[in-house]
Parts: sequence; C-alpha cells; structure tokens
Amino acid sequence: MGEFELIARHFTRPGRSARPALALGVGDDCALLQPAPGQQLAISTDMLVEGRHFLSTVAPERLGHKALAVNLSDLAACGAEPLGCTLALALPRADETFVAGFARGLFALADAHGIELVGGDTTAGPLNLCITVFGQVPAGQALLRSGARAGDELWVSGGTLGDARLALEVFRGTHALPGEAFEAVRRAMELPQPRVTLGLALRGVATSAIDISDGLLGDLGHVLQRSGVGATVEVDALPRSAVLAAQPQALQHECLLAGGDDYELLFTAPASAHAAVLQAGRQAGVTVTCCGRIEATPGLRVINAAGQPVPTPWRSFDHFQ
Amino acid sequence: MGEFELIARHFTRPGRSARPALALGVGDDCALLQPAPGQQLAISTDMLVEGRHFLSTVAPERLGHKALAVNLSDLAACGAEPLGCTLALALPRADETFVAGFARGLFALADAHGIELVGGDTTAGPLNLCITVFGQVPAGQALLRSGARAGDELWVSGGTLGDARLALEVFRGTHALPGEAFEAVRRAMELPQPRVTLGLALRGVATSAIDISDGLLGDLGHVLQRSGVGATVEVDALPRSAVLAAQPQALQHECLLAGGDDYELLFTAPASAHAAVLQAGRQAGVTVTCCGRIEATPGLRVINAAGQPVPTPWRSFDHFQ
Repeated sequence: MGEFELIARHFTRPGRSARPALALGVGDDCALLQPAPGQQLAISTDMLVEGRHFLSTVAPERLGHKALAVNLSDLAACGAEPLGCTLALALPRADETFVAGFARGLFALADAHGIELVGGDTTAGPLNLCITVFGQVPAGQALLRSGARAGDELWVSGGTLGDARLALEVFRGTHALPGEAFEAVRRAMELPQPRVTLGLALRGVATSAIDISDGLLGDLGHVLQRSGVGATVEVDALPRSAVLAAQPQALQHECLLAGGDDYELLFTAPASAHAAVLQAGRQAGVTVTCCGRIEATPGLRVINAAGQPVPTPWRSFDHFQ
Repeated sequence: MGEFELIARHFTRPGRSARPALALGVGDDCALLQPAPGQQLAISTDMLVEGRHFLSTVAPERLGHKALAVNLSDLAACGAEPLGCTLALALPRADETFVAGFARGLFALADAHGIELVGGDTTAGPLNLCITVFGQVPAGQALLRSGARAGDELWVSGGTLGDARLALEVFRGTHALPGEAFEAVRRAMELPQPRVTLGLALRGVATSAIDISDGLLGDLGHVLQRSGVGATVEVDALPRSAVLAAQPQALQHECLLAGGDDYELLFTAPASAHAAVLQAGRQAGVTVTCCGRIEATPGLRVINAAGQPVPTPWRSFDHFQ
C-alpha cells in the first residue's frame, strides 16, 4: 500500500460532523480553522522519537494516545480549549498494523476531547511522530509561566506523580516490580491523561501553570525563571501511588522530583484562592494537591514534612545530556 | 551545550517587534496567535527526513530555507498570508554549527515573509525537521483543490520546472552535468522560492491551486480528483531552464511531468480571466505560463505542441513505493 492510500484509509474520516471552528480538514494544501471571535489561538508542537519518548515495546494504540496526550497537555497548561491537531509521521515502512493501531489510539483521545485531525504528512524514515495542536483561549486569559507571585501556593494535579519514571526504571532494568504493580506504572507512562478540563477550570484562578514533562523541579524552574521568584516544595506532600509509596525513599524522591513524563499540571494560585482551586479540581474530577509555596527569595528549595532540606542531586532531563 | 541552551541561543530572538497577530512566542507551553477578525486560519505541516527530502550534502543554511519554504508553499497554494510557524527538530547530536546555519537559513526566509517562529521542540534522534505554518485568509477566499471547472485554463508558475529533479538525478549518478549547470539546478532543488505573493494575487482569480511537490502529473491528479474533471497538459508549453532544455527529451519530460520538489503553483482559472492571471503574475514578479486546459472528460492527457499524445510511464512520487 502506498503513502496516499495509507493516509486515506486510516487518517481521513469523511462525513464526520466537524466542529464549528473547522472549515476544511485533511486533503487540501492547508487546513482552515476559524477560532471564535475574541479568542486567541494557542499552538504547541511536540516531536516523539523512539527510544527517547517511547520504547519500541509500546502498543501502537497507546503510542497514538500518548503522542496526542502530550500535546493536549500543553494546551491544558495554557487553559486553552482544544480545537484540532496536525500529525506528521515518519515510518520505517508502510506498516498497516502499526498505522491502524496508532490511528485508533489517537482518534479515541481526539474524540474524547472533541477535536479533529485537520492535516498531516506521512513519509518514510526512522520512526518519528510530530503533532501540532491548536486550541482557543479568550484574549488575555491564557495561563502563562510568568505569572507566579511571592506568597502564591504551589499546586500539582493527579495522584500518581512519578509513576511514569518508575516504569522507565523497570524497563531500563535498574529496578524490579511485581507484574501487577508494573502494569499500573506502565499505564501511567503509556497512557497519560492531559488535564484539559482542569486547565479550563483554572482560568482566572491560577496565576501560572506548566505541565510536568521534564520533571517537577526542572519544569518548576522554568516558572520561577519566567516569574522572577523562588519556591519551596514539600516533597512529602507530593501525591504518589501506593506502588511508588512502597519503594525506597531515594527512588521515590527521584521519581517525584526529577521523573518527567507525568503530564500533570503544576500551577500557582494566591492563598486566598485555595478554596477556588479545590473547587476547580472537583469540577474537573482531578485531585489537586498543595505542595509548596512561591517566595520572593530566588532559588528552589525542597523540604520534607519536618521542614528539613531534602537533597536534590539530579539535573532536569535534557535530551542532549 | 544542552537542549535548552541550544534552543535559547539560536531560536529565540528576544525584543523583536512581533507581528500584530503574535501575542506570545517561543518559551511558554503554547504560542498565542490572534488572526484578524473575519479571517480563517490556514495550517499546514511538512516533515523532512534526510535521504528522502534532502541529502546529507546540503548546507545547513539551505536546509533551513527549504524546510520553511516547502511549508510556505502550501500557504501560497491556498492564497493565505503567512503569520508564523513552529519547528520541531530531531538532531543526532547537539551540533551547534548545524543548528546555527539551519536557524540562519530559516530566519532569513521567515524575515523575507514577515513571519515569526512562535514555538517548537528539539530532541535527540535521527535527523528530522517538522515545520507547521499558520497563515490567514478571508473566510471563503482560500484557493482549494476542488474548484477546477471544465473549460478552465491550466497554469504553472516559475521558469525552472524540473530543475530540482534534474539535480537529484546528478546526485544519484544517473546523469552528469557541467559544474555551472549543476550549481544552477542544485540551487533550484535546495533553495525553492515559495510563491506566496502570487498565491495572494490569485485570490478571486484562480478557481483552484496546488503546489507541485510530488510532480506535476501527480499533483494535478489530486486537483482533477477533487474537482471531478479531466485535463490535457501540453508538455512543450511547460517552462524550463536552458540547462534542462539542453537535455534529452525523455529526461526533460520526466523532470517536468514527474519531477517533484518544484514548489511552483499549478492552478486553474477561467479563460475569461487570462489577462487577470497574467496581471497577477506581473504583480507578484513571477512568470506564469498557460500549459493546458481542464476538460469534462475524466483522465489526464499529455500532448506535445503538434497535438500528439506523449507517453507518461512514471508514477507520482510515493514515499513508500
């Protein structure tokens, strides 16, 4: 099967009732999108490479999910409502089983968020997935990295921070887990849930937000730098699964603070908005946990529940380190 | 140098006066873009892989140009005004010479079209470049593939159709050219000029348009299929360089009709708009040549100046054939 046929068979879904914003989808030189009046378009792009962002062992359907999820997570971190995405795909060969599974996983998540694949490109080459997502947000209401203020509380979403990193350590062979525990953390790694609804609920509540892709400390560092502030994180307050909580403390700390691949939202809000944040979490059906405080003193401090400093010997994940 | 530093050094240009449409550029989870009221957003994405879309011999600066050019060409084919782009880049290693040259070439073309790089992603991996471009076009005025009508004239832009393919044949070793001639066709292959201004001038004049990326016949086939019409192309009317015109006829025909990588516009317009098309070409400073006619009879016929059928034994370029 050739390139055009492969695309046509798995990536065009004729006759689907498109969103009002989508004027023209796959099949022309460009897709045409019409954001609602007064809305800004939020755009993000992520490239996934085998061995870096996913392992060859991942099921194609889960890979389709994850490729879109990590992009939707960027829209969530801006408080943007998803509209559509494009997909560019390099494949070593025209592997229909892979493409069919990948498309199934991608479209299942796209449908869950009411968005369409509006365009794309397919080519032969080492496996590479590049998705660009588009969302809309009322002008001036986007959650930015630059809005954290001294005195703000620091929050994190979800209940399984660090599980993706724990799964990676098992795949790497540096750690072992019983089968069921491994399946649970593997799910966290392969099927992250983008916090889109929470991002929308946090508009007007949170002062800044970022999604945790490179590790909590590294991503928080971007917020602190952009906002010109410092922070203290309480590691014992960070939410973790029963599986992670059963691991040695040093491993827990590494997974929680330097893990990456979590795709939870890390955000700040004034202490006066504490109840509003909890309400936003309930509204979105997502646990939100206060795990620290933004301070005027520059730098990033990590303490335990007793207030003692916790060592942080890891660097943020850097693809070229 | 790490990933973040590499990006910061070469891909952020702080303090640049952004377009009015650009609310927030590189450095947050999303870029924010505000199309003018009443405009649709045109979006296209292209992925370039070494050995498929470019050779390892290409200078990084030319590669930066070409990666953006092929995307701008899609906006041109829709008659859209470019606003911005994102870049996702997989690099085998953090090679600063490559990145610096690539960024130079990309920004030179971006500046020529008044657009900004609004976001991106960099990762380690086999060399892969994925650019997504955004443009705007008044609602309902985009040039589509579906608008060709029987009786329309068929036009092509530019004067060096087929040169990119001729250069590829030299690189492949199937053909030889003297040094100067080779440099000229190599330029056509490595530095294509997206016909953005022509695309804008053709709004309201052309009935359909596509850019020639996979070869004239293959790309025309997409227009005919979408429009439900047929066409006759006169091969002797197709514009070609002096270098190509000096090659054997069979090679000329293959380069002109099945070459690909031309990034010229192939478009249709009513015969009554003949003068308006020539005027659009003058306005854009681009040669436009009438090279055939759209017909009600399905199928694609190629004839020479004497009206005799010309054999077309090639398939459209398919990345998986």
